[in-house]
Amino acid sequence: MENKHIQITFPNGEKKSYPLGVSLEQIAGSISSSLRKKSVTGRVNGELFDYQRPILHDASIELCDLQSDVGLEVLRHSMAHILAQAVKRIYHNSRVHLGVGPVVEHGFYYDMDLSVSIGEEDLSLIEKEMNNIVSENLPIEREEVSRVEAEQIFKEDPLKLELLKDIPVEDQVTIYRQGEFIDLCKGPHLPSTKYAKAFSLRNVAGAYWKGDNRNRMLQRIYGVAFASKDDVKQYQAFLEDAERRNHRTLGKDLELFMFSEEAPGMPFFLANGQIIRNELEVFLRGLQQAYDYSEVRTPIMMNQRLWEQSGHWDHYKDNMYFSDVDEQRFALKPMNCPGHMLIYKHQLRSYRDLPIRMAEFGQVHRHEFSGSLNGMLRVRTFCQDDAHIFVREDQIEAEVKHALQLIDNVYQTFGFSYRIELSTRPEDSMGDDALWEKAEGALRNVLHSLHYNYSVNKGDGAFYGPKIDIHINDALNRSHQCATVQLDFQMPEKFDLQFVDQHNCKKRPVVIHRAVFGSIDRFLGILIEHFGGAFPVWLAPVQIKVLPVSSSHHAYAEHILQQLKRDGVRVEVDDRQEKLGYRIREAQVKKTPYIVVVGDEEQQQATVSVRKYGEDDLNKMELDNFISSINQMIRDKK
Amino acid sequence: MENKHIQITFPNGEKKSYPLGVSLEQIAGSISSSLRKKSVTGRVNGELFDYQRPILHDASIELCDLQSDVGLEVLRHSMAHILAQAVKRIYHNSRVHLGVGPVVEHGFYYDMDLSVSIGEEDLSLIEKEMNNIVSENLPIEREEVSRVEAEQIFKEDPLKLELLKDIPVEDQVTIYRQGEFIDLCKGPHLPSTKYAKAFSLRNVAGAYWKGDNRNRMLQRIYGVAFASKDDVKQYQAFLEDAERRNHRTLGKDLELFMFSEEAPGMPFFLANGQIIRNELEVFLRGLQQAYDYSEVRTPIMMNQRLWEQSGHWDHYKDNMYFSDVDEQRFALKPMNCPGHMLIYKHQLRSYRDLPIRMAEFGQVHRHEFSGSLNGMLRVRTFCQDDAHIFVREDQIEAEVKHALQLIDNVYQTFGFSYRIELSTRPEDSMGDDALWEKAEGALRNVLHSLHYNYSVNKGDGAFYGPKIDIHINDALNRSHQCATVQLDFQMPEKFDLQFVDQHNCKKRPVVIHRAVFGSIDRFLGILIEHFGGAFPVWLAPVQIKVLPVSSSHHAYAEHILQQLKRDGVRVEVDDRQEKLGYRIREAQVKKTPYIVVVGDEEQQQATVSVRKYGEDDLNKMELDNFISSINQMIRDKK
Repeated sequence: MENKHIQITFPNGEKKSYPLGVSLEQIAGSISSSLRKKSVTGRVNGELFDYQRPILHDASIELCDLQSDVGLEVLRHSMAHILAQAVKRIYHNSRVHLGVGPVVEHGFYYDMDLSVSIGEEDLSLIEKEMNNIVSENLPIEREEVSRVEAEQIFKEDPLKLELLKDIPVEDQVTIYRQGEFIDLCKGPHLPSTKYAKAFSLRNVAGAYWKGDNRNRMLQRIYGVAFASKDDVKQYQAFLEDAERRNHRTLGKDLELFMFSEEAPGMPFFLANGQIIRNELEVFLRGLQQAYDYSEVRTPIMMNQRLWEQSGHWDHYKDNMYFSDVDEQRFALKPMNCPGHMLIYKHQLRSYRDLPIRMAEFGQVHRHEFSGSLNGMLRVRTFCQDDAHIFVREDQIEAEVKHALQLIDNVYQTFGFSYRIELSTRPEDSMGDDALWEKAEGALRNVLHSLHYNYSVNKGDGAFYGPKIDIHINDALNRSHQCATVQLDFQMPEKFDLQFVDQHNCKKRPVVIHRAVFGSIDRFLGILIEHFGGAFPVWLAPVQIKVLPVSSSHHAYAEHILQQLKRDGVRVEVDDRQEKLGYRIREAQVKKTPYIVVVGDEEQQQATVSVRKYGEDDLNKMELDNFISSINQMIRDKK
Repeated sequence: MENKHIQITFPNGEKKSYPLGVSLEQIAGSISSSLRKKSVTGRVNGELFDYQRPILHDASIELCDLQSDVGLEVLRHSMAHILAQAVKRIYHNSRVHLGVGPVVEHGFYYDMDLSVSIGEEDLSLIEKEMNNIVSENLPIEREEVSRVEAEQIFKEDPLKLELLKDIPVEDQVTIYRQGEFIDLCKGPHLPSTKYAKAFSLRNVAGAYWKGDNRNRMLQRIYGVAFASKDDVKQYQAFLEDAERRNHRTLGKDLELFMFSEEAPGMPFFLANGQIIRNELEVFLRGLQQAYDYSEVRTPIMMNQRLWEQSGHWDHYKDNMYFSDVDEQRFALKPMNCPGHMLIYKHQLRSYRDLPIRMAEFGQVHRHEFSGSLNGMLRVRTFCQDDAHIFVREDQIEAEVKHALQLIDNVYQTFGFSYRIELSTRPEDSMGDDALWEKAEGALRNVLHSLHYNYSVNKGDGAFYGPKIDIHINDALNRSHQCATVQLDFQMPEKFDLQFVDQHNCKKRPVVIHRAVFGSIDRFLGILIEHFGGAFPVWLAPVQIKVLPVSSSHHAYAEHILQQLKRDGVRVEVDDRQEKLGYRIREAQVKKTPYIVVVGDEEQQQATVSVRKYGEDDLNKMELDNFISSINQMIRDKK
């Protein structure tokens, strides 16, 4: 038994024998000392594992450094312990009962029951003590204990005792120690505190114990952590950029939209926002016309029995609003599909009529919890640029392709790159296996034939069929799911849709659900953040601001205004009795794409001095050239 | 007493003495025999009076001929008696219990309890008997009777006995006789049946006795009657024209819209209807931009407390739909005003900001009884082209004028003439007398200053202020109230709206409600009937149909299609394997404005043969000329 060995399999398939009880650190060291230093954790048979924990059986292993996803997860977890240790040191004279300290995106938090109230101003003191703990380079040690031992260790810590009770009886209880600090924890953790250099505490908030509002309110300290201090700085710069681009702030500053407590989650488009909204609608309507769609408009609410027929009642009723009409229950539409099915059914359809591409800018209502509302990005009512394409089976692939081309056309216009996900059958799905396989196969075929890269999102399809989701990347490289192309073999069954084929037989069409913006409201929110409020000229609420240097140039400014207005350009003259510099700055604050300054010289020469948003130079141009180039840019959506 | 005289005053103020008991007929005869022959009834002290009934006191009188409104009313009333008499003669072996037989627009009906069932096929037999009664020239005689006498006369007529009981005790009971026929009736009637020549029975329908569905169902025979047979013919031609233009029929034939039992009264716009709807919206949006309106968009539903604040709750709740959101009651908006008030309030407003012209294409919901729904003309949800103009008091008249000019601009485009009504304070109004007088005075001033003719509609204002309604006349000279300009001193109070004046004092703005189409849905219905489905080219769903004579002309047809499509013209090629004549007829049935035929000659010469809707000639034009003239017509909305 003394000399027992185990077999370790490496990611490249190589196998090697090591003494029983070898650690990941020792294995790394057996390869190279640099690998040992670089790595901080790893996986053993897929499970996250402490670097120094003995391995007690044959295993496949993987070594991970601090930069890896696994490394960052372990780092952030240890960071939470360091935070808790620092708080215990600083507030050792007060009550400090620890709750949980999990990892979240980019960072970590720890919930604590403290007799003192911690404010943002206390965070730098805590950070300082955390840095001390890091420099002390305390080893972080895993220990398996019995429940009795654990109860003894945490006898002063009521929240930990509660957590202890929640650990399933068959599970081993483990604790982690670093210096004087002990925590009840499943791990794994970093080998020692010295790795946890790059962090920043961000805020304090209240949080109910176990997320239940009948429990005690704890204090949650939230921080971010990365592999290097440069990464922290970069992330902070990203947050500042995101804050500057925040659509709620810009929505207010640029007077794009507002919300009211009289209709939470239901946007009010102000004049400037409505201009952009209309431009988006007109743009897509024009494209849809070119792509041979027809547009319809269906009622906001319809009888509940229709939603029972469509299956929305079973799958979606908790998110629907209802109203009584003629003593019957009507539902406000959460989707446009059933209305489009009624339109399809209302006529006899022949195989020659298909495909029918039926589009609607449909205002839908979907209930969301008030706590989850977020500006334009999560609302309770929005306008969906919805379409249903009714096809014969032999047309599926061509039509999915046609839809993906339209989507590409739209996203290119905004400069969005995107990635594609194929979502397959979810657990609460309708319909039988054969139908699902057929549908998923069709979508895969199209994606392959288009040579698209795509990832598969297993089990994330709609309840009625598999779907292709398109995720756009914005200027901050954040991902937003907007467009969708969903195959539906269920809806035609439920509504008994038919067409007559060339042999005069009745056949079932297939429905393709399609959206490009998804929600115009949310898409506007994304655009605001993507462009940081500095919209391309075709979208800008005010496209050109004309500033006469003095009152003697007013007539020339007015002449330019009328010329541009005639072409439908959105232009304003600012001839207030304010300094030119002040008026220029104000137009810049409003992110007006073009500022046109006209003084004596411009007036005499029929020219304009043009300042493009984001540039410092004034560019002198002939008026006619300026007008035609502006019109060209608006037409080209550049 | 024998020689007692009474004084008769004529409409021109002249007075003359006549023996007590003189009749209108005798008075007419005393003036001229032609006047005696022409007149058939009249008014005595304002009350309708039988021609031969003795006048028993001094009176102002007015003589009326058959063509006058009074004459027609009396004619139609006697017509109902003649109908009843004819039915009694024909069905003398069956039960015939008479109900009521009143006058309605253009005609009359009689409700009867019959043991036989009368169908449309029986109407000509009844008409024939009615003509017999007319030729018999039976005198129609009024007789005053006691209740006991009346009970005796109608002892076999249970419905008449019921009516007798309903006559107030202080009223004189009267009967009318013509030949063997007696009816319980207040009158007045024609002197004899010979005047009632020009009539036509139209249909039979069921009707509950006294309009109460708990009562017995009677048979209602409905007819029209006029002063001359030419008038009857003209009215029938009008009905046929109206039927040809019926928007429900055309809406189906031209695939403009549909309705579903899943949402009664809530229109589904089909592709063709949605094209027209979009054109209307784009047209008005463009005009509103030129008139310096800004457009907004507000939620479909808002908290009930907002509607309580606005006063809609008190005055309109029976017509509103409700839904629960977050356990609070929300109302689907029946009007857009409160949302616009919230937008106004959301910023500090200065006197320099006013007027603010806030427009919305707002989808509103208003409950209507299912029985009163009528295609697009009476629906439960529609899109209102609503605007609220926030003004200082000194801007009221200029802004009302500005709104009336916009309205004029729109109506001229459709070729509608219109008349104006000023509606004043209704009974259920809000606010005090002084405010109402101020508001009404302002509207009168504007109408006077614009030299508009207008009529006053006393008591027909909105509950919050007086209004100017504009009634358009369609191609059949029917009147439709569409546009409205309403002054509102109440809403700014209720929402505590303010602006800061030049002395930095807080002031109350005034709100002007304005709509042009009123309801886009209803306006579309009116347009369909106005144009009889043959829309001007800018509105037509398909503007041009290109017909290649044979397959060898397909390429040229496709070339024309692409050229026109590039300009955004809605064009289709019909190259089906059908005869040219058949394809031309089909395009005409669809009322396509332009049919373009291309064959060898056209292809070689780069020309087109153009057939305009409603014309027989084929007009040969150069292709380029045709394209530019089509574009010009669409731009000019001709």
